[in-house]
Amino acid sequence: MTAYNAPIQDMRFTLNHVVGLSQVAGLPGYDVVTPDLVDQVLDEAGKLARDVLAPLNWVGDQNGSKLENGVVTTAPGFRDAYWKYAEGGWNAVPFDPDFGGQGLPWTLALPIQEMWTSANMSFSLCPMLNQGAVELLQAHGSEQQKKLYLEKLISGEWTGTMNLTEPQAGSDVGAVRTKAVPNEDGTWLITGQKIFITYGEHDFTDNIIHLVLARTPTAPAGVKGISLFVVPKFMVNEDGSLGARNDLRCAGLEHKMGIHASPTAVMAYGDNGGAVGFLVGEENRGIEYMFTMMNNARLGVGLQGMAIAERAYQQAVDYAKGRVQSRALTGKDPAPVAIIKHPDVRRMLMCMKSQIEAARALVYLTASALDNAHRNPDADAAKAANALNDLLTPITKAWCTDLGVELTSLGVQIHGGMGFIEETGAAQHYRDARIAPIYEGTNGIQANDLAFRKVLRDGGQAAFALIAEMRATATAIAAQSGDDMATMGANLSDAIDAVETATKWVVETGKADMTAVASGAVSYLRMFGVTIGGYLTAKAMMAANGLMREPGADAKFLDAKIITGRFYADQILPQARGLLTVVTQGHRAVMGLSDDQF
Amino acid sequence: MTAYNAPIQDMRFTLNHVVGLSQVAGLPGYDVVTPDLVDQVLDEAGKLARDVLAPLNWVGDQNGSKLENGVVTTAPGFRDAYWKYAEGGWNAVPFDPDFGGQGLPWTLALPIQEMWTSANMSFSLCPMLNQGAVELLQAHGSEQQKKLYLEKLISGEWTGTMNLTEPQAGSDVGAVRTKAVPNEDGTWLITGQKIFITYGEHDFTDNIIHLVLARTPTAPAGVKGISLFVVPKFMVNEDGSLGARNDLRCAGLEHKMGIHASPTAVMAYGDNGGAVGFLVGEENRGIEYMFTMMNNARLGVGLQGMAIAERAYQQAVDYAKGRVQSRALTGKDPAPVAIIKHPDVRRMLMCMKSQIEAARALVYLTASALDNAHRNPDADAAKAANALNDLLTPITKAWCTDLGVELTSLGVQIHGGMGFIEETGAAQHYRDARIAPIYEGTNGIQANDLAFRKVLRDGGQAAFALIAEMRATATAIAAQSGDDMATMGANLSDAIDAVETATKWVVETGKADMTAVASGAVSYLRMFGVTIGGYLTAKAMMAANGLMREPGADAKFLDAKIITGRFYADQILPQARGLLTVVTQGHRAVMGLSDDQF
Repeated sequence: MTAYNAPIQDMRFTLNHVVGLSQVAGLPGYDVVTPDLVDQVLDEAGKLARDVLAPLNWVGDQNGSKLENGVVTTAPGFRDAYWKYAEGGWNAVPFDPDFGGQGLPWTLALPIQEMWTSANMSFSLCPMLNQGAVELLQAHGSEQQKKLYLEKLISGEWTGTMNLTEPQAGSDVGAVRTKAVPNEDGTWLITGQKIFITYGEHDFTDNIIHLVLARTPTAPAGVKGISLFVVPKFMVNEDGSLGARNDLRCAGLEHKMGIHASPTAVMAYGDNGGAVGFLVGEENRGIEYMFTMMNNARLGVGLQGMAIAERAYQQAVDYAKGRVQSRALTGKDPAPVAIIKHPDVRRMLMCMKSQIEAARALVYLTASALDNAHRNPDADAAKAANALNDLLTPITKAWCTDLGVELTSLGVQIHGGMGFIEETGAAQHYRDARIAPIYEGTNGIQANDLAFRKVLRDGGQAAFALIAEMRATATAIAAQSGDDMATMGANLSDAIDAVETATKWVVETGKADMTAVASGAVSYLRMFGVTIGGYLTAKAMMAANGLMREPGADAKFLDAKIITGRFYADQILPQARGLLTVVTQGHRAVMGLSDDQF
Repeated sequence: MTAYNAPIQDMRFTLNHVVGLSQVAGLPGYDVVTPDLVDQVLDEAGKLARDVLAPLNWVGDQNGSKLENGVVTTAPGFRDAYWKYAEGGWNAVPFDPDFGGQGLPWTLALPIQEMWTSANMSFSLCPMLNQGAVELLQAHGSEQQKKLYLEKLISGEWTGTMNLTEPQAGSDVGAVRTKAVPNEDGTWLITGQKIFITYGEHDFTDNIIHLVLARTPTAPAGVKGISLFVVPKFMVNEDGSLGARNDLRCAGLEHKMGIHASPTAVMAYGDNGGAVGFLVGEENRGIEYMFTMMNNARLGVGLQGMAIAERAYQQAVDYAKGRVQSRALTGKDPAPVAIIKHPDVRRMLMCMKSQIEAARALVYLTASALDNAHRNPDADAAKAANALNDLLTPITKAWCTDLGVELTSLGVQIHGGMGFIEETGAAQHYRDARIAPIYEGTNGIQANDLAFRKVLRDGGQAAFALIAEMRATATAIAAQSGDDMATMGANLSDAIDAVETATKWVVETGKADMTAVASGAVSYLRMFGVTIGGYLTAKAMMAANGLMREPGADAKFLDAKIITGRFYADQILPQARGLLTVVTQGHRAVMGLSDDQF
């Protein structure tokens, strides 16, 4: 319906000049990441996204995936697209080369994932969930399990799924009831129902490898009694060939507001006695293992918010340039103009553009922290990167996905009445984006994770380290010449002051009054996100300022970075200060009503 | 799917103690509005909304209206519901008793309209558009036109529609191209295509009376060359019986993101030579006449945002009380609790409740200003009320409809994963609510209307009068005892200061730099809305405080008003101060990029 062109110049600028891809490329094992390779990979991925995935986005929305007699048929064109994607080697990007992976850093894998998501969010969910399964098996699978499954999950010959949720176990994964009973041969019989299983059944591949959380007979109650099992749709023989169909089936597909092409399955295990499962690692450590992939999955969902906003932005720009309506606000000419000339339309586009760029930088920064946490040979640096990644992950997940909803809503608004008409396509982005603040831990859960686990637990150490880093940037940009730089310096500094005050309040208050902190946690996360976005935007402005002086510089592109940054300073950063009193003073009435006063 | 119970106690409290229904009831011609009548009317409307309209809301969403061979079939049950509504006399509530209307004030009509909208927004659009047609004919129709059409439009035997938009004429209604050519007999032949015509075709009634904007052959260009015509679907004989089918047809229904049951028609006039139309009033005065009903229509759309949020709130409360998930944040009990016990869920519910109540008060206040503008025998008071209504209308339309989107989004979020599943029903409210910031003048247009026409044009006079009124309330509540009152007083005062500063800036800047004002207009409207909401909330708190001391007071209800007000003071009012710099400083980069830098 609508075109998508990967914003490769923006991506490359952010990677090279804001986040520091070259530093990541210097980590052990990443020497393959040369500038040439980066260019080539981004260009090729961009073509697949533009030519194959993006044109199917609307088709997928309108047709959805369909279930008939236990068989799921994906939307027209999706299976072919999947094989173009898999045969191009794209499924293997970030994984272990020992099993066919390309071993590229997350800092490069995320921009690629961004393209799939912008082009076709429903499609992108299949690789994303598969990634979780691969990471779990890479980290915790036995040699036998790796041998049987990993290579094919990495090549894309099969796909993997994550089976956590049950009707009574959503945010509270400790409430899982699915049972695993041991057989004499070391396998287990799995019985139970799982819901909200993304690509739990589909027609892309011959086999699907389900990773399933279940309780063994001797398990203790709660999260410490949950084990992880591999449960293949078809049993896999020693030689890798497929054996009998396992006792599991797709019992239903959800009828969702968005991401229609992504089959969200109800999975029934063990209708006929039990599905055969294989324990991963040790009993009762399933939740612990899950956390291996959780940060990464949350980063991936944060990326979705930004990526879908980018798609909506491209469409809104296109419409605003083409739609002619009403005369210009100023001047004498009565002829109608393209609506991009109207200040409020322009403001909406700038809101989208400036926050998408900030969110993109945050996603890539979080990815670079992940790479450093895993690979930095300096133990202190790796530890600091790990702490930074832990801190940034809930912020990236929640801030970027809230932005996904807000910015796709602006995308609708820019279209006026046409935005509400489904054929325009703007509404799809808005509907698709709405899931991201919910799944992979609601944004309320992210906010509590930030406040309690990432800030309170270490006494604010990681947060204050980032604040110091941000403050250095604010000082540096304030020292540069020009009103734009000075304004960013001042507004960023003010936002940082607000975050610092809020962080101190969280650290001081959290132990005595958890309810107060929890009441303000969402606003605290928001002000932190807005401020980090400002910090990264300031870095982009300074980089653009420097690059402008180089011969052959793309002045128009670099100039846009500075103007866009100024807009962020003027219009977005003030949110942080505005939220400070909400965080620190806003809790008094939150719990004041009795239930029956609602 | 989900129940709706009209919040009659809240409505009555707001009418009696915040907005002053008794003052309105004292206006000439409204002496029928006794407390008994009000009670009876609200109760009866509440029953129809709960028992007839609300159960059809989900049915309407899933079935939509369907077009086949030019005939539109509305969703199952809608036609019957329409007749229950019309036969109950509800269609006649605010209209001229000379033509069968009940002559009730808008201050009472709006709460009733709120119930229809909360119960079934798609249904409510039919009476709402009909209301526009009735108002136009009441004010500008000839005696003959009134005689032929008004009585039946008021009784509901027929319905009326508003035909403004064409593909090239959306926000810019001056670009209308539909033609009207005079016949010798004084009638006109209408040819052209209209789009986005709400209930342009349906099966509720035997006839549909279209009010159509068109250009006559001698018309000047632009908005000053547009005339208004009555174009009935079936010609009406002198005796009121139906004659021949007119040359107009429904050429298509839009496929929309929400309000599926409301048929949004493409209307083709004059495929076979021209539809017969009758000029309303004088040639070239169509746009001027439109403004007769525009304020009221915008108020009605503002109401939609609040009403749909109320429906979403009721559903979210119900879910939050019933859904058990995770242990309480504090205490030792490991048993899971209803999610309403979790602070962040509570925060979301309070965000909904506090802002819905503020928005409701604003809608009713705007209605009372309308009644006073029309009926207050004191010319100065009527003039002041008219100015207040003019000032409040764009704020009510835009702030309440933005809240409609934001609060229905919170409603989805409270449901977690279930919120994204269509059968839950929360998603429908979110989809339905999204149109309200767009139609009847986009919220960007409302913001410009506020800044340029309602504030700049009179040098801020009406705005400063309201600011003075609000300041008196801030002073009064600050003088009452208790921390809740003091906090509201302080935070309201701070918000008023911010609005006053912004208003001065608009007045000072607007003439020299329209672009600067237009760039900040949406934020200016927002801070004004938030502050008026605080002012009305403060009035509610003081009223509750006073009523609490009366014998037989409902302490639980009144106490909730104070706690909810405190929440508004803590969490919502700080937005106003936060937006001040965005309004006054935020414009510098808005127009900075050239088109090709997007």
